[in-house]
Amino acid sequence: MVRDRLDQLRAEMKKRGIDAYIVPSSDFHGSEYVGEYFKVREYLSGFTGSAGTLVVLENSAALWTDGRYFLQAARQLADSGIELMKMGESGVKNIESYLADTLKEGAVIGFDGRTVSCSFANSLTKVVGEKGMTLYGEEDLAGYVWTDRPALSAEKVWRMDEALSEPRRLKLKKLREKLAQRKCDVLLLSGLEEIAWLLNLRGNDVESTPVFLSYMIITADKALLFADIEIFDADIRAELEGDGVKLLPYEEIENVLKAESTGKRVWADKESTNFRLMGCLAGAEYIEKKRNPVVFMKAVKSEEECNGMRWAHIKDGAACVKFIYWLKTNVGKEKITELSASEKLLAFRAEQDGFIEKSFESIVGYGPHGAIIHYAPNEATDCVVEPRGLLLVDSGGHYVDGTTDITRTIVVGELTEEEKHAFTLVLKGHLRLSAAKFKYGVGGGTLDYLAREPLWAEGLDYNHGTGHGVGFVLSVHEGPQRIHSKGDNIVVTMEPGMITSNEPGLYIEGKFGIRHENLLLCVENEKTDFGRFLSFENLTMVPYDLDGIDASMLTEEEKRLLNSYHRTVCETISPFLNDEERAWLEKVTRAV
Amino acid sequence: MVRDRLDQLRAEMKKRGIDAYIVPSSDFHGSEYVGEYFKVREYLSGFTGSAGTLVVLENSAALWTDGRYFLQAARQLADSGIELMKMGESGVKNIESYLADTLKEGAVIGFDGRTVSCSFANSLTKVVGEKGMTLYGEEDLAGYVWTDRPALSAEKVWRMDEALSEPRRLKLKKLREKLAQRKCDVLLLSGLEEIAWLLNLRGNDVESTPVFLSYMIITADKALLFADIEIFDADIRAELEGDGVKLLPYEEIENVLKAESTGKRVWADKESTNFRLMGCLAGAEYIEKKRNPVVFMKAVKSEEECNGMRWAHIKDGAACVKFIYWLKTNVGKEKITELSASEKLLAFRAEQDGFIEKSFESIVGYGPHGAIIHYAPNEATDCVVEPRGLLLVDSGGHYVDGTTDITRTIVVGELTEEEKHAFTLVLKGHLRLSAAKFKYGVGGGTLDYLAREPLWAEGLDYNHGTGHGVGFVLSVHEGPQRIHSKGDNIVVTMEPGMITSNEPGLYIEGKFGIRHENLLLCVENEKTDFGRFLSFENLTMVPYDLDGIDASMLTEEEKRLLNSYHRTVCETISPFLNDEERAWLEKVTRAV
Repeated sequence: MVRDRLDQLRAEMKKRGIDAYIVPSSDFHGSEYVGEYFKVREYLSGFTGSAGTLVVLENSAALWTDGRYFLQAARQLADSGIELMKMGESGVKNIESYLADTLKEGAVIGFDGRTVSCSFANSLTKVVGEKGMTLYGEEDLAGYVWTDRPALSAEKVWRMDEALSEPRRLKLKKLREKLAQRKCDVLLLSGLEEIAWLLNLRGNDVESTPVFLSYMIITADKALLFADIEIFDADIRAELEGDGVKLLPYEEIENVLKAESTGKRVWADKESTNFRLMGCLAGAEYIEKKRNPVVFMKAVKSEEECNGMRWAHIKDGAACVKFIYWLKTNVGKEKITELSASEKLLAFRAEQDGFIEKSFESIVGYGPHGAIIHYAPNEATDCVVEPRGLLLVDSGGHYVDGTTDITRTIVVGELTEEEKHAFTLVLKGHLRLSAAKFKYGVGGGTLDYLAREPLWAEGLDYNHGTGHGVGFVLSVHEGPQRIHSKGDNIVVTMEPGMITSNEPGLYIEGKFGIRHENLLLCVENEKTDFGRFLSFENLTMVPYDLDGIDASMLTEEEKRLLNSYHRTVCETISPFLNDEERAWLEKVTRAV
Repeated sequence: MVRDRLDQLRAEMKKRGIDAYIVPSSDFHGSEYVGEYFKVREYLSGFTGSAGTLVVLENSAALWTDGRYFLQAARQLADSGIELMKMGESGVKNIESYLADTLKEGAVIGFDGRTVSCSFANSLTKVVGEKGMTLYGEEDLAGYVWTDRPALSAEKVWRMDEALSEPRRLKLKKLREKLAQRKCDVLLLSGLEEIAWLLNLRGNDVESTPVFLSYMIITADKALLFADIEIFDADIRAELEGDGVKLLPYEEIENVLKAESTGKRVWADKESTNFRLMGCLAGAEYIEKKRNPVVFMKAVKSEEECNGMRWAHIKDGAACVKFIYWLKTNVGKEKITELSASEKLLAFRAEQDGFIEKSFESIVGYGPHGAIIHYAPNEATDCVVEPRGLLLVDSGGHYVDGTTDITRTIVVGELTEEEKHAFTLVLKGHLRLSAAKFKYGVGGGTLDYLAREPLWAEGLDYNHGTGHGVGFVLSVHEGPQRIHSKGDNIVVTMEPGMITSNEPGLYIEGKFGIRHENLLLCVENEKTDFGRFLSFENLTMVPYDLDGIDASMLTEEEKRLLNSYHRTVCETISPFLNDEERAWLEKVTRAV
């Protein structure tokens, strides 16, 4: 079936003189998750992982994906004739070099220019440009092959609670001030989270991200919103109009952008603007390609958003406590698998007021599965949770008033010394980071040491960031800040109002995985003659499993932090539990 | 006198239709210190500080300098008619904005294009370009005014000990490989330290930096050295020729660069290449402006250089121990001033084998002077060191086998509780950083937290970096790495072989200043399944003053670090002391 589909694609390529066709996993907006309409790569290759890029040539095809999908991709690509390219393995070329080395001089490389970021296209041009190859991004060839393709999602748009949002009129005003400061006439917004945040609207077009398909063009006196007009109820339409936002059909973005940008100074963020739209700016006088200002505005939560997040975390905390109590009480007595545990947790969340959906695919990994960083159980891998060892649960929810993301490593039975040592070591770094006090101006790179120090001291480490930004009922992963030792964004200043995860871990292949994750709200601490100091407030309200802790490894300060956090959790969550659960919570939050 | 000189300059400006003339404090190579020939700004303004830029307009003039020189500049500029622009103070424009706002559209801004970095010229163009102003960097107008100007320095060049240097032929080979990797045909080297390092030669043309005035152009088959031919003895000339390095007159750089760069891919670092030379590259096919590869090569010291540095630090340690013993024994008995103490320290260093010169102007600040971060005593500010409080001494030397940079805060008598608390707090961060163990790939931004944590916890901080790179018998300040929480270079990977200072401090205005500084050599620690780990070796060998330490504030681990360091210092330095000094060193390095 895959072979037939690829052959049909090749026929379309041939008609147009295209030598290679690239099919990424993206929508037109650079979203982390994509709707069904955009799952072209899955349709053409049979590989269902969330990340991967297919490249089809006249007589061959190859698919690039990362470490978490090597096994799954190998299985799903078997017999497809598609070669698996394991990204990050030594000797594996990236797509740019592969094309430069495989194709002949003057070749034409095609793709749907709406699904390719301007950054990737630039990098492609750099590498293949030297051999006189050209890029052709004008047509979606897969559209001709995928005849029973689902329609573009067009779910109804809903309003954020006014008490939780700064009025959109005010947001637009602030945004226009920033445009003026940077001397830009026109701002193009492509990121769905950015548009949803700016308009105080949410939707349901993308899995795990309550956004709606749209673009925006903003000038000093216009605010044009491109989207399926049907998804807005009359009252929302009227409200938008009242705030000066004009609705236009989704498809008109290209023509309007061309007209609006001609002779103007345009801000079009190269991270979120796709290749096709960047091409529409040929007539602009100047293009500012830096991260657009909405990215920074929405990263700093308002007091109202912070309050919403606090409340969402209390509800989520209650759901998690109920889940952990249920799990620890019933493991070994009834049959619990990774998948059934995942469903149970979702059920507890769904009982909470204002729950919308999971904020990402839950990671529920028992024993050795816990060591696979992006593991999510499926029918093929699901296993029974036995009454011994550790179950790693990384999950979260969107509520109408906030978004959560929490990891707890749960002790489901007897532990080895190694497991307990690792559990405690990771907790030390996690606790220290939560208690950081730092000078304003510092980025996540400087804070990273706190979380890793106890592991590094023993020659251990985890191969992922310590913290990512979290959106407000938007994507659970957002920039611009990050806590890590590597990457450019670690110098982004940590601002009061930013919410960032704190999730150190340790993964022993074939044995177990440990991660402790809370969300931290950055807050003002004190102002002195020496400057302005910040610290963190824990939003997450769920106990760490005391059964995993070797208290002799904790310093007095670490014990104080642990006990104080547990006291707060107990006081905050108890009112939402039944008697049995409450008694249990008191016991598992006792001082050590 | 200054007024006459400025009027002469204005006459020259008028002849050429120049509306503003900029006079920076730089030589043609972006050096930190400059030779007498280059002290044009001092000649024209009367201001003798090391940093400052003079801007002369038709009817006015202004001088920009930073906080450490506000008092001195105000005094020296009085009656000159030159306005003092206090950089960093609120409401003070930078030079670019000042010119954009003050001059008329279409104005011409002049400067000696050899003394202005390409980066500054770019920033200038960006701001004034919008008003149709143009830059003119072709003439050194000050040269016409300064008739008794000293000649360009032309001191003899000397060879580095062969046992301490990788052969220049090998260095050139490695450098050419890096050029080929980046697909560059031509490399322009302007930085004096880079050329001296590459050729294993040193000179004496710049104060506190043993380098010689020169440029280099390197291609796959040529290595052209532009310098005063007289400064090379016949044997060095022969050696250079044997290694394929061709000597050309210093003045020929511009013409040869034009010829060599035409139609070529050229690497010309925008940080060290001056405006005039960048202008010579108009015919190049492509200009790579990133930091040039020699910057990275020389930052990673070879095993031979590390051994030289260790030995230089032992000699320097002996000199410092003798000095501290002398100071603490004689303070209050004989008259000791900041300047006389500084001279005494220099005398102890000068007694050591292979001492060349100070590696920077010594900072010797007693009491409140210690709180002035860049304070260096002069006749006007010098004061007597009384037998109470703290004396901050930050100094260093160049030896034929290495360069040192050390700060000790010396207890010269009774201390207040506040002084002792501050002394110990700073020491805690300093000790922790010295004991860091970290994953390969980490930059100085991530390590900075260690040094600042104890201060930040109490709402304190120091307004400077924690660590700078140190050259090998070159500049005492070198890139690319840096330990700090701010700036782009804090993400530069810390490599084994890099030498970086560790110098946290605390400055209480009007009272006292504290800084503890050692040089740290980055070394391999261990390789595990989780990666490659690095740590530091202390190069500096001088005790911290136990009289300043409140041992009750130290953790057990900090005490262990302190005692272990002191034991090493005592064992290493004792053989170089007389009996009296040795007995004293044993006492002051006792375990706490």
